[in-house]
Amino acid sequence: MTPCNQKKMNQNKLDKKIDFENILDKVRVFAPATVANMICGFDILGFAVDKPGDEVKMYRVSEPGVRIRCITGDDGRLPLDPDRNTVSACVKMLLSDLGLLNDIGVEIELIKHMPIGSGLGSSSASTVAGLFAVNVLLGSPLSKTELMPYCVEGERLACGYGHADNVAPALMGGVTLIRGQADLDVIRLPVPDELYVGIVFPQVDVPTRDARKLIKDKVLLKDAVVQWGNIAGVVAGLFQNDYGLIGRSMQDVLIEPTRAILIPEFYEMKRIALENGALSFGISGSGPSVVAVSRGGEVAQIIVDKIKDHLSAREIDSLQYVSAVNIAGPKVLEFDV
Amino acid sequence: MTPCNQKKMNQNKLDKKIDFENILDKVRVFAPATVANMICGFDILGFAVDKPGDEVKMYRVSEPGVRIRCITGDDGRLPLDPDRNTVSACVKMLLSDLGLLNDIGVEIELIKHMPIGSGLGSSSASTVAGLFAVNVLLGSPLSKTELMPYCVEGERLACGYGHADNVAPALMGGVTLIRGQADLDVIRLPVPDELYVGIVFPQVDVPTRDARKLIKDKVLLKDAVVQWGNIAGVVAGLFQNDYGLIGRSMQDVLIEPTRAILIPEFYEMKRIALENGALSFGISGSGPSVVAVSRGGEVAQIIVDKIKDHLSAREIDSLQYVSAVNIAGPKVLEFDV
Repeated sequence: MTPCNQKKMNQNKLDKKIDFENILDKVRVFAPATVANMICGFDILGFAVDKPGDEVKMYRVSEPGVRIRCITGDDGRLPLDPDRNTVSACVKMLLSDLGLLNDIGVEIELIKHMPIGSGLGSSSASTVAGLFAVNVLLGSPLSKTELMPYCVEGERLACGYGHADNVAPALMGGVTLIRGQADLDVIRLPVPDELYVGIVFPQVDVPTRDARKLIKDKVLLKDAVVQWGNIAGVVAGLFQNDYGLIGRSMQDVLIEPTRAILIPEFYEMKRIALENGALSFGISGSGPSVVAVSRGGEVAQIIVDKIKDHLSAREIDSLQYVSAVNIAGPKVLEFDV
Repeated sequence: MTPCNQKKMNQNKLDKKIDFENILDKVRVFAPATVANMICGFDILGFAVDKPGDEVKMYRVSEPGVRIRCITGDDGRLPLDPDRNTVSACVKMLLSDLGLLNDIGVEIELIKHMPIGSGLGSSSASTVAGLFAVNVLLGSPLSKTELMPYCVEGERLACGYGHADNVAPALMGGVTLIRGQADLDVIRLPVPDELYVGIVFPQVDVPTRDARKLIKDKVLLKDAVVQWGNIAGVVAGLFQNDYGLIGRSMQDVLIEPTRAILIPEFYEMKRIALENGALSFGISGSGPSVVAVSRGGEVAQIIVDKIKDHLSAREIDSLQYVSAVNIAGPKVLEFDV
């Protein structure tokens, strides 16, 4: 953390009572992948999916401090150094603010079930899993709202840019609106029952930092008006269970034209999705994953299959996921008292 | 209308059956004033108020065609020529598209209860009242959605800019979202019961055309993101009956700083409103009217009284209105068979 952030965190130092008798020995937690922006809502909307997602196993140990025991599924790309690894660094920060860093020891196993740099909130799923795990281990002294700033700090460590657009839906579940970034004013929006997504990750590399640099810092007001009409439309559609309104509102006239350049076959994939019944199609986060939103999972499955075939014929490997929009956020898979 | 619009309207030519036996002899209609933009939602949000508003009395006469019988409350500013007066021109256009212009004669009395050029949708209230009146006179052959394009044409005649941000709430009632301007995709949003407004019209002249020219055609993306977070927040707040969320979302970081320059004492009025319990305060449409949004009418009354005193002390005349957000849109006040 920069000195500025350090100061901010200290001002919010936590005053929580921990029941040392009832700290768990072990907990295993899943946290979901997320589709930031929700196509039309750059930097403010996002949703979680039931799969993929990451797992954290956290063990209480006698030696104080936070350590990484092992990481699987990352092809060796993530650091094991507890101060450099985002998950352990955030857990350490939380324990420090709870005044527990010299009293409690935890070891972390991180099991990544999704690719890094895919635009699916890979780092945020890990961070949320870790912070949710340590909170459960300690008897859940913090609310999700209280955990949120630590998750955002995790994003700052991972991406160099502390934003809530992935961690908010990963932590809260469902569709989230970040009304205000500065004050972390996060609002959960309703999720229609049949809202599904088909996600395709074309295995090309688009680092978040580079994808963000491409975006111009000024936009045409008339385009912004179209964009905020769509954003208001998708929010209204979610409340009204109106799949048609959701679909025609999930259009991005501002960011997609720029980011699509980095994604092979983007417009062909979009054509396939829309021709096969997608309500909408766009980029997940900063890409290169793309997302088809549909009513029901069958349509989504057909679309990802067709896109996979299309990419295969062009010798582009891809991963596919079909999932309902996740409602619960992170969940405890097992725990030992 | 430009040739282009003429063509558009002809393509939509109406195929409605009119029951000539049951056309009314007279109808009197009220249509509400409107607060376009709803502070944060430039060009897409707006709401109607119970007062002020305009009235149209429409009489069926034997001589075919559309004529203005008289206009009151306009200080002689509006044209009586039926092709130049917006109300009669729109009514004529509708009768023409219904194929009735040579068969039906109507005469119009327009009673203006609100100032022109106030930023309260004065022209749109008159237009909506006129079009609603002729539709009722004819036995309501058109739905509100079908009347909408004629209302927008009226705005084009009145302001040189055919936009639905005033006519949509005036016609539909309540809070309206114009998701798409090109396809007139208008969505009615729910209105919390206790949502009131205090409106103050400082009697200075700010023509819509000039107010619009001030606005830059490019905006910073980071400001646009703040704006669309607020827009999404206000939509969510309306659905959730969350007055706090509505209030903190109704902030305009993009347009207000520019338009406020044209409004005397704007920031002092804002301070008075917020210090006295307003949920939010901002410019109505392109101004110079300002609007304090409140929970309940008492707060709104206190605010407009204090603002009135503030302006009086500076020798600025003003008009004040306190009103609930209107739900019904235009209404029939009386009719004769």
